[in-house]
Formats: sequence, C-alpha cells, structure tokens
Amino acid sequence: MKKIINAPENYTDDMLKGIYAAHGDQVKYANNDLRSYCIANKVPGKVAIVTGGGTGHLPLFLGYVGEGLLDGCGVGGVFQSPSAQQIFEVSKEVEAGAGILYLYGNYTGDIINFGMAAELCSMAGIAVKSITGADDVNSGAPEIRRGVAGIFFMYKCAGAKAAQLGTLDEVYEAARRAKENTRTVGFALTPCVIPEVGKPNFTLAEDEMAMGMGIHGEPGIWNGALKTADEIAEESLDTLLCDMPVRPGEEVALLINGLGATSVEELYILSNSVTEILASKDIKIYKTFVGEYATSMEMAGASISLCKVDGEMKEWLNYPVRTPFYTQK
Amino acid sequence: MKKIINAPENYTDDMLKGIYAAHGDQVKYANNDLRSYCIANKVPGKVAIVTGGGTGHLPLFLGYVGEGLLDGCGVGGVFQSPSAQQIFEVSKEVEAGAGILYLYGNYTGDIINFGMAAELCSMAGIAVKSITGADDVNSGAPEIRRGVAGIFFMYKCAGAKAAQLGTLDEVYEAARRAKENTRTVGFALTPCVIPEVGKPNFTLAEDEMAMGMGIHGEPGIWNGALKTADEIAEESLDTLLCDMPVRPGEEVALLINGLGATSVEELYILSNSVTEILASKDIKIYKTFVGEYATSMEMAGASISLCKVDGEMKEWLNYPVRTPFYTQK
Repeated sequence: MKKIINAPENYTDDMLKGIYAAHGDQVKYANNDLRSYCIANKVPGKVAIVTGGGTGHLPLFLGYVGEGLLDGCGVGGVFQSPSAQQIFEVSKEVEAGAGILYLYGNYTGDIINFGMAAELCSMAGIAVKSITGADDVNSGAPEIRRGVAGIFFMYKCAGAKAAQLGTLDEVYEAARRAKENTRTVGFALTPCVIPEVGKPNFTLAEDEMAMGMGIHGEPGIWNGALKTADEIAEESLDTLLCDMPVRPGEEVALLINGLGATSVEELYILSNSVTEILASKDIKIYKTFVGEYATSMEMAGASISLCKVDGEMKEWLNYPVRTPFYTQK
Repeated sequence: MKKIINAPENYTDDMLKGIYAAHGDQVKYANNDLRSYCIANKVPGKVAIVTGGGTGHLPLFLGYVGEGLLDGCGVGGVFQSPSAQQIFEVSKEVEAGAGILYLYGNYTGDIINFGMAAELCSMAGIAVKSITGADDVNSGAPEIRRGVAGIFFMYKCAGAKAAQLGTLDEVYEAARRAKENTRTVGFALTPCVIPEVGKPNFTLAEDEMAMGMGIHGEPGIWNGALKTADEIAEESLDTLLCDMPVRPGEEVALLINGLGATSVEELYILSNSVTEILASKDIKIYKTFVGEYATSMEMAGASISLCKVDGEMKEWLNYPVRTPFYTQK
C-alpha cells in the first residue's frame, strides 16, 4: 500500500486535524469530536444543510461545507457512515432557526444513521427534512441507485436557495429539482486501497476497465478492455440520455469528475469527447465543471454527470461559494 | 498504459480543445494555434505575465492564466517546451501597454525558447523582463535548480502586483521576492507514463519511494523504503530549513502539493505532520494551501513548499483570483 500516512487507524483523524489546522478560519468541530464538522460562522435565519458519509471521497462530503453551500457534515471512517450521534451534534451546532435539510448519498448505513439523527432532532424540536442523492444510473433502479458525483448539483442548488434565505420547503424543493434532473455514469481503471485493509478490494488487468463501478468499488455492469475517451463518452451518454432524455435545444450542466488518480489532462480529453457528442445532438452545455468533485482516494477513473437546467437552476449554479475545497465567484 | 485518451499523439490538443470548450468565457488562443493560450479579456495598462512549459502538470502552467494571475501561456507537448514562436504569439496578444514579465520554470528548453521569444519581442518593441522559478532544493545548487510547485507563490505575488497596476520593474520585483523566499522538497511514490511513450520512464518497487525526484521523473537524492508522513515531513523540513533558515516567530505560507495520483486525504495528513513540526519550531503558518498545484499526470507523490512572507506578500497571497482552474476570494 503506497500512501503518505502514519498509522492506518489514524487516517481519518490525521486528515481531519490537517484540515482544521489549515482552515480554522472557515470550519470547526462540535462536541469536541473531530468528526462533527461544522461551518465556523453560521447565518441566523438560514436553513442549515447537513451532509455526511464516509472518508475517502474528498472533496465529498466535508469539502462542500462553507459559504453558499453546506453547513455541517458527519464524517465517518473510510467508506463508513458517520454515527447518528455525530450527525445530531452537527445538527444542533449549525441549526440557525429555520430548520435543517439532510442531503446525503443513498447508502444503507447513511440512511439508517441520518434517520436516527432526524428523530433525535425531532425530539429536540428541530425541524428536519431529508433527501438523498441517487444519480448513478448503472447502479440499478431509481429507488436503489447510489449517490455519486451528481450530488454536487443538489448541493449547489440547495446551497444557493438556502443562502438566499429560502424556507426549508423551498431548499428541499431546490435539492429535489436538481436530483430529478441529474444522472451520472462512472467507470474505474484501477482499484483503491482502504488503509486499514492494506490491499485493493478488487483487481483489474492492465488493459481492463470497469464500466459502472461504484465509488467504493461496487461492481459495475461490465469489465473489459479499456476503451478510448471517445468510446467511453459515447457509451456513457447513451446510458445517461436513455435514462433521462434531453431534447435538442435543451440545456445541461456537465460535470466531468475524476475519481482520484486520473490526471486532469485526461478529464479534459474526456470532456472534449462529451462536448462534441452533445453538440452533435444539439444539446446545449450551459456550464462545464471539470475536476475532482467526488473521489475514491487513489482510484483511477472518472464519471460523467448531466444536470438539465432551467433559468432558476442556472442562477443557483452560478451562486458564489467559498469552502476550503471549492470556490466559485 | 491506463489513460482515458484517444490517439496518444493527440493528447495535448484534445486536452486543449476540452479546456477551450469548457472555459471559452475566460480563455482563448492566439494565431489560430491551440497552444498559444491567452486570457480572454486583457486589462489595458497592466503588465502582462506570460508563462509556459510542457503539458502534463495541470494546473501548471496554463491553469494559472486568469484574473489576478497570469495573462498567457505557451503550451508545449507532454514534458516539452513550447516554441519561441508560440510564446511570441501569446506575448503579442496579451501585451497591454505596460510590458511583459516572462515567468517560467528553470528548464533548459524553456530558457532557450523564452530567450528567443524575448528577442522577438524586443525587435517588435515590446519590453520584456524574465525570471525563472527554481525552488526545488534537492535538484542542485541554486542556479541550476528546477522550478516546481513553489512557482505558485511567484505567480501569486507577481499576479497581484500586476493586477494592482504595478510597473514592469515592480511586478518583476514581486516575483523575485517570492522566488528568494520560496523552497520546495518533493518526492514520488510511483512513476507516470508519457502517452506517446506508453510505459513508465522509471520503476519503483512496491514499498519504495524516491526523495527529491523531479516532476518529469528526474532522479532524486535517494530511493528507499516508503516512510511515514511524519518521517517524510521531518526530513523534508530539515532540508528546506537548512537551505532557507526561518527563525522562531517568522511567518511562512505552506503549500502541500499533490503530484497527481495521491489522494487529497493524504495531502492533509502530510499537512498535519508539517504543521505540527513547524509549530514545535515556533514557525508561524500564515496560510496553508493544500491540493494539486503542479502535477506530473498520474504520478503519486507530493511536495512541500515554504514561502517566507512579509506584510506586502501576505496581501498579494490574499489577492482574489479567478481562473478556470483556481479561484480564490
């Protein structure tokens, strides 16, 4: 295992100490627990948005806590859910008088723990609504789909609506609209290693890729010979547009996300392939995001997300944000 | 070679097409040549800053072209210098009446080509001053040192001074001050692959790292067993602080840079190790930057840069910037 770490069992907490030391002006932790990650300064009267999930996906999940986006994050161990108590402690800290939206990925452990945290909030008189990201088309039927990089569009829309002091129902609705209009297809070229395990949890041959693989290494729909960027873009868009038709002349936001080890150069090559195919279908790209938005540590691979946008959603996507990991102005 | 690409010989141009398609509101190219990369809107009366270098280091070099930073970039093939003609075409396009600073890494090909471009500018009546980044302590004596991630601090200081409409001499001086006060130590855990070569240009055993390796795979000072984050931080800081002493109470900016495949999680673990050692020496960290600032495609590894800062340099480091690859506000 080639990682720049100390003891594997300290991976998550060493990382968190590094983040708090570097960005203490922007974030802090609640309840004396490094894993209860909160924005440093809350805005009175604003709906608070709380997310959470396992470590190993930076900037997911905590990297989106900051101005114009989210307010808190329960941080689990590598690929593990945060506890209900951690989510509840974050919730109490960031609640600012207008209720809380829980916005997280559609994974069993997270659903259970956010559900319990919501009950704790309810008993404490804090209003909570919940919604999950579930954009990974190749992971199954809509209700069981995993949440992957497309959750960024939900964060962005809900975060902007909350910053505009929308009500809890309105912030929920912004997230729901982004969810409804977002789909992702991802693929892996290499595995990653969970530090405490010390070895890859799957293998791919030197010429092999895994189409549809999840960001924890969940099996995809096929393993086979590595395709070109153009071929990957074509197959991925076929899958995306079959699941969510986009008519000629309609507009989308495009997110090309790197899973960790893939170079940004390759992401732009892939972005170019996707852009050319969308142009050939007369689908307009309103805005393109390229970079690492949801990773799987040092996994090589990428994902392609499309989000159909209307006028209000464009405004939300353009809303300025500033977190230690992501700034837009 | 596991890369998301089409034909290897189109790597650089496919990437550039993707970048222009995604960010056409911010950047464009001159002389009908994709590799003559320019800011979309120039500011009259501002000193223009032009950089350049090989492809394969994103966000270096072109990623720093944008508001508050640089104005143009000559783009070479993978690990190759841009041509003098390309640099000259960029120069003519971005020159805005106050002269040009050439700011690039201390590599032979770049020195030759930027030198020739400066002569072409001189014949065209454009004032040019030149300075190179040469921060990589382990690459040799100061005059032959390679430029690596620490060039970010030169970009940031010179970029801010230019945005403040400083004169060419003042912008040069800002770059020089950053250069004088910046040192970097880097290390690699895995090689990368030049697309047109198709195989790694060096090998490291599964438990091995290369201290001091350059961002093109130039040999370092030792290859040996992978150390812990704490050990790497300690050795690196010993080297850095021996070369550039920092007294207790003095302030530095810290840059923890990932070389490509290394996860952001690990970079924060390393940042935590560095932060603790600097605290033990009573060296104050004014600001910490963590992420990918100068990569080597999919090489795993990282670098640590320190920049001693004074009041004016702090102001420059805080100056807002916006490029397609890097935003600070």
